[in-house]
Amino acid sequence: MTTLHPHHDGSPLYVSNLEPALGDRVAVRLRVPGSYAPLSAVRVRSNPDHEPAWAEAQHLGTVDGWDWWQAEIVVANPRHGYRWLLVHSEGGAEWLNQTGLHHIETLDAEDFALVANAAPPAWLNEAVMYQIFPDRFARSAGADGRELPEWVIPAEWDDPVNGVMPHRTDQFYGGDLDGIIEKLDHLEKLGVNLVYLTPVFPAASNHRYDASSFDEIDELLGGGEAYQRLINAVHSRGMRIIGDLTSNHSGDQHEWFQSAFAHPKAPESEFYYFENEQNTEYVSWLGYPSLPKFNWASEQLRERFITGEQSVVAKWLKPPYSTDGWRIDVANMTGRLGAVDLNKDVRRLLRDTMHAINPDAILLGESTNDAASDLQGDGWHGAMTYPSFTRPVWGWLSEPTHEPYLDGDANTLTEPWFFGQPLGGIPRYSAREFVDAVVRFNAGIPWRVRLGNMQPLDTHDTARFATNAAPGTVPVAVGLAMTLPGLPVVFAGDEFGLTGVDGEWSRSPIPWGRESSPEVAQRLALYTSLIGLRRAHPVLATGGLRWVHVDEHSVIFVREAADETILVAAAREGIDAAIGAGALAGVGQAVELYGEATLAVAEDGAVLISAEGPTFAVWSLPGVRLPQ
Amino acid sequence: MTTLHPHHDGSPLYVSNLEPALGDRVAVRLRVPGSYAPLSAVRVRSNPDHEPAWAEAQHLGTVDGWDWWQAEIVVANPRHGYRWLLVHSEGGAEWLNQTGLHHIETLDAEDFALVANAAPPAWLNEAVMYQIFPDRFARSAGADGRELPEWVIPAEWDDPVNGVMPHRTDQFYGGDLDGIIEKLDHLEKLGVNLVYLTPVFPAASNHRYDASSFDEIDELLGGGEAYQRLINAVHSRGMRIIGDLTSNHSGDQHEWFQSAFAHPKAPESEFYYFENEQNTEYVSWLGYPSLPKFNWASEQLRERFITGEQSVVAKWLKPPYSTDGWRIDVANMTGRLGAVDLNKDVRRLLRDTMHAINPDAILLGESTNDAASDLQGDGWHGAMTYPSFTRPVWGWLSEPTHEPYLDGDANTLTEPWFFGQPLGGIPRYSAREFVDAVVRFNAGIPWRVRLGNMQPLDTHDTARFATNAAPGTVPVAVGLAMTLPGLPVVFAGDEFGLTGVDGEWSRSPIPWGRESSPEVAQRLALYTSLIGLRRAHPVLATGGLRWVHVDEHSVIFVREAADETILVAAAREGIDAAIGAGALAGVGQAVELYGEATLAVAEDGAVLISAEGPTFAVWSLPGVRLPQ
Repeated sequence: MTTLHPHHDGSPLYVSNLEPALGDRVAVRLRVPGSYAPLSAVRVRSNPDHEPAWAEAQHLGTVDGWDWWQAEIVVANPRHGYRWLLVHSEGGAEWLNQTGLHHIETLDAEDFALVANAAPPAWLNEAVMYQIFPDRFARSAGADGRELPEWVIPAEWDDPVNGVMPHRTDQFYGGDLDGIIEKLDHLEKLGVNLVYLTPVFPAASNHRYDASSFDEIDELLGGGEAYQRLINAVHSRGMRIIGDLTSNHSGDQHEWFQSAFAHPKAPESEFYYFENEQNTEYVSWLGYPSLPKFNWASEQLRERFITGEQSVVAKWLKPPYSTDGWRIDVANMTGRLGAVDLNKDVRRLLRDTMHAINPDAILLGESTNDAASDLQGDGWHGAMTYPSFTRPVWGWLSEPTHEPYLDGDANTLTEPWFFGQPLGGIPRYSAREFVDAVVRFNAGIPWRVRLGNMQPLDTHDTARFATNAAPGTVPVAVGLAMTLPGLPVVFAGDEFGLTGVDGEWSRSPIPWGRESSPEVAQRLALYTSLIGLRRAHPVLATGGLRWVHVDEHSVIFVREAADETILVAAAREGIDAAIGAGALAGVGQAVELYGEATLAVAEDGAVLISAEGPTFAVWSLPGVRLPQ
Repeated sequence: MTTLHPHHDGSPLYVSNLEPALGDRVAVRLRVPGSYAPLSAVRVRSNPDHEPAWAEAQHLGTVDGWDWWQAEIVVANPRHGYRWLLVHSEGGAEWLNQTGLHHIETLDAEDFALVANAAPPAWLNEAVMYQIFPDRFARSAGADGRELPEWVIPAEWDDPVNGVMPHRTDQFYGGDLDGIIEKLDHLEKLGVNLVYLTPVFPAASNHRYDASSFDEIDELLGGGEAYQRLINAVHSRGMRIIGDLTSNHSGDQHEWFQSAFAHPKAPESEFYYFENEQNTEYVSWLGYPSLPKFNWASEQLRERFITGEQSVVAKWLKPPYSTDGWRIDVANMTGRLGAVDLNKDVRRLLRDTMHAINPDAILLGESTNDAASDLQGDGWHGAMTYPSFTRPVWGWLSEPTHEPYLDGDANTLTEPWFFGQPLGGIPRYSAREFVDAVVRFNAGIPWRVRLGNMQPLDTHDTARFATNAAPGTVPVAVGLAMTLPGLPVVFAGDEFGLTGVDGEWSRSPIPWGRESSPEVAQRLALYTSLIGLRRAHPVLATGGLRWVHVDEHSVIFVREAADETILVAAAREGIDAAIGAGALAGVGQAVELYGEATLAVAEDGAVLISAEGPTFAVWSLPGVRLPQ
């Protein structure tokens, strides 16, 4: 039987104000199961200016078997960390932080945390993102007439993707922006409401991360006018759209780099890290000469890229384009080189500038590994990051593979990597380890920022989840993406069941016209219904998260708010869980929303959930009642 | 039977260069027990500029049942984090970081870490610190003639300490600097070699943290000449001495504050956070008006306090004083206020300035709670901090007390606090929890910095450990302070068995003359022999740390180097441990150095350690052999 634990998280049930300013008083609440040890006091430890300060909690009352306590804290720093202390009447005490209950002292980094900087727009929490890699999404008739540059290796839409150099970067399908417009019905039917386009600037590769200018839109995609048409079309459907910008580097064909290369006196010379007097040797991203690294110590670069009236960042946010934000590529390395670390400056400048132009714009930073150090609410509204959701899902729900893998850079077979990590294959996590990993990599991130973190199963940079999914687990994985706290992401093509062994091999053109084939239709229906679930129940966007049962094989959690509770059960190979009476108030009124698990309430109030095989099941329960 | 685990730490056995510069290649080594799963690869993940990079380890050979692997890493950032990946031949992989082995991914913050900033002086690792609170240490005859200021409440040396206001701050025993000189024989006999004096600047309290000037030495202590005499006397015995400086605040009687208070146009006005136009309202430490907070945005303050030729920091490091460093009070809050955080600037300025004046000086920062965020090797050589050693020792080896406590500020009985935390008493940790806490709070700190962290059982700011020590555990606690990695500290008076329930109640005058009473003599002998142990075996200062057996009641670890291994067994209530064969190479040659435990080697090579009651036992073993 699962034991009930005291609970707090950053959601509105527990925090009176998620958008406080410095100096504001915020009420924070804790719920303690009636079965817990008697308490002589409940306290909150804050750490203003790095020195502990204590607030005494008051007992608010008891509802549905839970004791509620409340304390007031005064927000002292932009990231205001706090933790709970439960003092037992019979001696001893326990701490509660973002990793759970502890008998021994806990780390500052894992405190709950309020953020006192400007809040991200509310719509970010209502979004379901759809990621489009333009060359592979859809091709309009207009694409036929375009003259292709020399580097292009043209491909027909039905050609298989070739992930080996030079095809890897040069194979060109000719998807374009008008092609996307033609497919917006598909997006709307799917239920997504936020389009994320990988770069659309002119470049010398199919991925366009090597921009030759940030000032125009690639004519191969239809140019600036097509971009305006697309943005208008997206907006007219009540959807939003964001672009993709590299703040770590430009392409070596970029106009700034071309001005500076071999021209030490050019004003753009200071934009890069040139290493010799002739300005011909320079620092580049991971040593790729085609991607020279920006030097953010340059005030001129800051102005032309971010802060100036005509800056890159500003231009595409303002009319006539009016995109809804940016995803920043290689955000994690931006401004960092050796002893220099200007990352915080850059991300704050980006956020402040964007906020001034349009407070309704979002800013997401790519940080594909542990992102916590950069996600304290001072810059990025969220991250494109993998260890806090994506990799744990893979670990739990994939078939481990150790098959050698074709390295497209070297064109040799190598041992399988896992998201850029030479682990010898996909790791195998138990359900418990899935939860441990999700908890571990979210513990250092304030709740509000966590809600903005992208929650994809895969992206243009990774293998596709379906490639190695254990039989029957795709619905489980998609379901988790839609029901755990974070920004759900569909990488275009996943809803068609596409597969692929790495980022490049996975960039298959969308197989338009196959929507009604039984397999694709089933997959589309799966996505449509789970995205619909997410969007129909706001508690899935902003409600609290409480794990109610975790064992080696299954995970049961609730997302909770005052007006609704959503109960989720997920398993790779069946569930047989007994949840202690009192864990789920109002479970007798549970309404099944999705999946095929059995939910029964025993005479003693315990809740029994059982199912066979891979399971993803969802119920709606009454909201959580607080003491009046 | 204890299982053997792969091991790495920051010590010379495992790291070829502990003082690398940026760009240096450093060899790092891993040892893996022969009984571990077969490995297809061993790798090191670094994270240069926040992007993972991998190095392949080579198998060096097998010695004493351990496989050794080695990889080379290029130091990319001032704090260069790295972790090990062990890829199993039969599939799956494990990670090794500063918290141990993990099947799931690990956090960047808990990586092993090299530091590429200037290294602390080597003598820091050879030091055993003796902390002196001058008013209570020893009184020379010269003290008799001094005129006492009005605030003083004079006390005779034998008077009991009164921790209630106003005695709390004003009770004055008249210990002075010449008094310390007279007692240096005592320090030398004890074996300590580094004196840390709490403040000696003129002030209006017995603790002198409210300095009225940083430019002279309190005449009540004998003034600048006595300070010179003391420093010379200390140095002539081959010992060192550091001072105590408040960088967070001054006293309100400080000459700078007096110039600025009510004088908005004074140059010193910008040194503080005045909150009204008249310069009469200001920010102070925790709201105590006697301690106005410094504003480190002031360049003038930086110059007069730190960077100038005649700065406070410089003056006392240079001849004729030539002290050996600083302990910085309230280092954790320094430069931090609300949205402002200049802490890193200040600690780097301090370190850089001190390094330029005397690279042999040390810089320790007070940070009494989780200090990891400020201890990345960019400023403080170490911290006065409690959660990584002191509080875990208390948790394990104290008798929990819930007796009400006399709050000397309010003069009321309150529930007992624990190091400033209202936990309802001293927590009770098992031996396992002791280790968990030590591991947890050191995991975020690079090895080199950890070695500089002070390791006291108590200080002038805390209750004395002996007050609540479980019967027979003082030797265990002192032993741990001398044998775990870190800077051992004796707070003057502990070696006389003094007790006290909080910082103020614990500042008892040293009971000189009682050295030969049986109880005191026994305690002195204990300290002398354990300090002697530490100093006679350099491996205790800089050797690796490997836990070889941890259970609920006992802890066994080794400190390891190429020329010696020290085996330590500690228990609160007896030991009965079996350690797997192979864990302790050369155990057959063990030489008992301290304590009364039984060490036996079974026929299968297992090591059996047993003892009754509180135990602290130490053996010398041969050093660790690496493959040739």
